[in-house]
Amino acid sequence: MFMRSAELQALQSLLDSLSSNLRYLSLLNPFRFQVHCMLTHLLPVELEKSYRLLNHGPTVLVSAQDHEHTDVMTAAWACALEFSPAKVTVVLDKSTKTREIIENSGYFALQVPTLKQLKMVYALGMISLKDAPEKLRHSGAELFKFPHFNIPVVAGCAAWLLCELISEPHNQQTHDLFIGKVIGAYADERVFRDGHWHYQDAADEWKSLHHVAGGHFYTIGDAVSVYTDQE
Amino acid sequence: MFMRSAELQALQSLLDSLSSNLRYLSLLNPFRFQVHCMLTHLLPVELEKSYRLLNHGPTVLVSAQDHEHTDVMTAAWACALEFSPAKVTVVLDKSTKTREIIENSGYFALQVPTLKQLKMVYALGMISLKDAPEKLRHSGAELFKFPHFNIPVVAGCAAWLLCELISEPHNQQTHDLFIGKVIGAYADERVFRDGHWHYQDAADEWKSLHHVAGGHFYTIGDAVSVYTDQE
Repeated sequence: MFMRSAELQALQSLLDSLSSNLRYLSLLNPFRFQVHCMLTHLLPVELEKSYRLLNHGPTVLVSAQDHEHTDVMTAAWACALEFSPAKVTVVLDKSTKTREIIENSGYFALQVPTLKQLKMVYALGMISLKDAPEKLRHSGAELFKFPHFNIPVVAGCAAWLLCELISEPHNQQTHDLFIGKVIGAYADERVFRDGHWHYQDAADEWKSLHHVAGGHFYTIGDAVSVYTDQE
Repeated sequence: MFMRSAELQALQSLLDSLSSNLRYLSLLNPFRFQVHCMLTHLLPVELEKSYRLLNHGPTVLVSAQDHEHTDVMTAAWACALEFSPAKVTVVLDKSTKTREIIENSGYFALQVPTLKQLKMVYALGMISLKDAPEKLRHSGAELFKFPHFNIPVVAGCAAWLLCELISEPHNQQTHDLFIGKVIGAYADERVFRDGHWHYQDAADEWKSLHHVAGGHFYTIGDAVSVYTDQE
């Protein structure tokens, strides 16, 4: 525990290089124990397969930070746009603080919340940071960051897409439509692994939410297959 | 049955004016019996509420016709864009015939297929009209048109959004992203009425499909509410 600075730096460097397998980080690096707790069960998703995190049309949380503010909002209108390089769209109303922050910072995350987070998802969609500076605390959102990405994300979600804004003033102004290039993707292996959702094998609390209106949502349902179930 | 042309025209005109309540059409108009069979249970949806047909992120069918061709394809990347005037986005790859047809005609429909149509939905997504001129027949898609709209749509779906293309060459060329203004919307009252989906009261065969990959989908699941179920 009492290494010289150069040794510490070398160790840190080694540990960073191991970050692609996040599960082992805390075994080697006591300085990162807290991060590890957040990252347990979280595995990177190949960028080319990150569209699968959104393909079933879940309602998402959009998070971002600039020099002054950090915000998270709920959005039902998010969608995959391109396989490779992976891109996404999300519609962000001009009244939202999250939109302002993304325009300032050029980065945002989309994340797939779960049934367990229903109340939080609703609160993050109903309250604006402009009216309630304590929005995040009141809604119960706990934030963390993935290594190498300076984008705040919400703990307890099922999947995360870290995005760099592709600036398109016409789409942003005329349609409130924001396009992001996916620069990192992660999922909780308990519900997404090997490039696929495994809702059918996970507890109901992991199910994605699909917004209807107000406080009403549907969860994702059963797996069906053309060959297995229908023939 | 043997009216003069002027009388027939007057009657036709009257019947057209009643088309907002489609259920009664066939009672009055024997000439439209076939259309009535298709339209039984189909009710118009207010354009300002048509976003709710897509809000839960279902996989959709995209249909269109030009002077030469009619095509239908499956698309997982469709999304609401604006409440009023109602607009939608859909991503259409350059390889698809449906895209060419929409570029030619300037009109398309998005429709929400059901679990009962699973095989058809899969077939319409796998086969291209470019390779298989008999695609629609082989996939089992039965088409009809709503009164006053010259856009072919697929029978048996749960909801339909009739759209006029908003031409945006940059979005279409760079992102394969097509924007449509919703000019008509309908839903089957057995599963969508009073501005809301009623999946919880309908048979499973009515459930929307949410594409995963290949022949694998999820259905929409249970209704959950922040106030009713969680507090």
